[in-house]
Amino acid sequence: MILTITPNPALDVTYHLQRVHWGDVNRVEAVSETAGGKGVNVARVLHQLGEPVTCTGFLGGETGERLRGLLTGVEQRWVAVSAPTRRTTAVVDSTGTTLFNEPGAPVPDEAWTRLRTLATDLVGDGDVVVASGSMPPGTSEAAVTSLVTTVVKRGAHVVVDTSGPLLRAAARAGATLVKPNHHELRAATGRDDVLAGARVLLGDGAGCVVVSRAEAGLLAVVRQDTDADDPLRTWHARPGSVVRGNPTGAGDAAVAALARALHRSDRPLPDIVAAQLADAVALSAAAVAKPVAGEVDLAFYRRARSAVVMSGPDDR
Amino acid sequence: MILTITPNPALDVTYHLQRVHWGDVNRVEAVSETAGGKGVNVARVLHQLGEPVTCTGFLGGETGERLRGLLTGVEQRWVAVSAPTRRTTAVVDSTGTTLFNEPGAPVPDEAWTRLRTLATDLVGDGDVVVASGSMPPGTSEAAVTSLVTTVVKRGAHVVVDTSGPLLRAAARAGATLVKPNHHELRAATGRDDVLAGARVLLGDGAGCVVVSRAEAGLLAVVRQDTDADDPLRTWHARPGSVVRGNPTGAGDAAVAALARALHRSDRPLPDIVAAQLADAVALSAAAVAKPVAGEVDLAFYRRARSAVVMSGPDDR
Repeated sequence: MILTITPNPALDVTYHLQRVHWGDVNRVEAVSETAGGKGVNVARVLHQLGEPVTCTGFLGGETGERLRGLLTGVEQRWVAVSAPTRRTTAVVDSTGTTLFNEPGAPVPDEAWTRLRTLATDLVGDGDVVVASGSMPPGTSEAAVTSLVTTVVKRGAHVVVDTSGPLLRAAARAGATLVKPNHHELRAATGRDDVLAGARVLLGDGAGCVVVSRAEAGLLAVVRQDTDADDPLRTWHARPGSVVRGNPTGAGDAAVAALARALHRSDRPLPDIVAAQLADAVALSAAAVAKPVAGEVDLAFYRRARSAVVMSGPDDR
Repeated sequence: MILTITPNPALDVTYHLQRVHWGDVNRVEAVSETAGGKGVNVARVLHQLGEPVTCTGFLGGETGERLRGLLTGVEQRWVAVSAPTRRTTAVVDSTGTTLFNEPGAPVPDEAWTRLRTLATDLVGDGDVVVASGSMPPGTSEAAVTSLVTTVVKRGAHVVVDTSGPLLRAAARAGATLVKPNHHELRAATGRDDVLAGARVLLGDGAGCVVVSRAEAGLLAVVRQDTDADDPLRTWHARPGSVVRGNPTGAGDAAVAALARALHRSDRPLPDIVAAQLADAVALSAAAVAKPVAGEVDLAFYRRARSAVVMSGPDDR
């Protein structure tokens, strides 16, 4: 099974207006709500693909209950916390979208313990755990390390898509695959060069680094057990054409594709990445083609797959 | 007693950021919440002045409960509704404030009936009822008319600060005093000239029209029972100096001062307005001097009173 963890989910609220007057008073014409958070998006994409998936993370308050009610069809096993789940507010008018992300509330250690226990109960050999999105304020490296270590010990794969020192902590704890975007990679490693940055995370202990680079597609770097001086293999996968739409959720679709690939195959990691990176790019493009984050255009996905331009592996 | 009615209250949420990037993703640094709505602000100002005041209106959901918890010290007698109380979201950065007002949810007729019953139970001869702010979407003129008529029949004064056709409905139902700002007056009456607009509302049936005009202060027009061709008396009151600060809530402070004046005096309406319009301007300026709507700077208020420039009455 695939378990997605959203440590800091959000009730995504959208304010619709004809035209925002910045610095002034605006009457919102319509308000809509969706279940948000990167791990929630990954779960929704997997569900849309017909893949069995369970959603967890920390949920609280009325906002949390609303999120739960909006996430129809997906198996949910949230860890209850007392602080209300945060909101994001997207302001959409005819000129574009401005997004405001609330930071969320800190999560007590005992809730992290309950999350680890839940993960231990649910997953075993060959399962995949995805931890995606921002962490609650004040999350310690120890909490992330402990979660990743626990899951790895169960024999499951761990895919982590977060940022900053906690991304490094996940890599050090032995995450199977980490997926920063190029900005997050630079911020976490201090390296301007993508390959140099990926090398840092592999040095930390990650099995594979997949870097999402917007229209430039995905770059994957995998360690291989050889005696070569630099035992890394690298692939690029680019979409066949530039897709217009909503890029929010594109990275989550890529993560969903990679999690599915890990779940379906017991081949070595380099082989899985080589075989499935193009698929991840196509699913990512199919997410851009849909206006709502966490949804993919399945017809577009099928068409896009054959158009992806794959290069590599480059032995470096 | 003074009863303030907020038909469409709001949980006022403020997002604090260093600098907003419009059209992009923003991380909110801090989130704060206050009890909002114009009637709530009026009640908070009256409470700060030591005036006994009760707050009512329609309240629902967790947002409603949070509003109730934030409105400390003020007697609250809300009418419960099932729809959650709306939010407003203020985005504050170093360059200014942008406000987004959610429309709120419609209120069923039976809830309006419960509100009328509550008002009937609570108020009697010489009491003052203040109805302030926007009405829930879909509010009928009949609901407003019925509320104002009920209260007037009880011998209480009614002060109404709302906009559009429902302001006209309140005037026609015999509101003691209506307080539009100059924009709302123009929108409700179609008259560019303030005096011409006020005359329309007096013609509808309002006892007094007080128009708030930002730095230009307050203009009051009152009917008097004479045999003159045009039995209207007019006063202007202007602050002694321009006050810098937050103008949100300035009109609510003026309404609070006028409600207190009506409550304390049984003299004829023109006499009350003549004696207390300067006070309303000073309290309004004292609200601008405070950064939070619904609060007044009491020391500033005492100093500002003597500086108000009063002109009129002009018999027109």
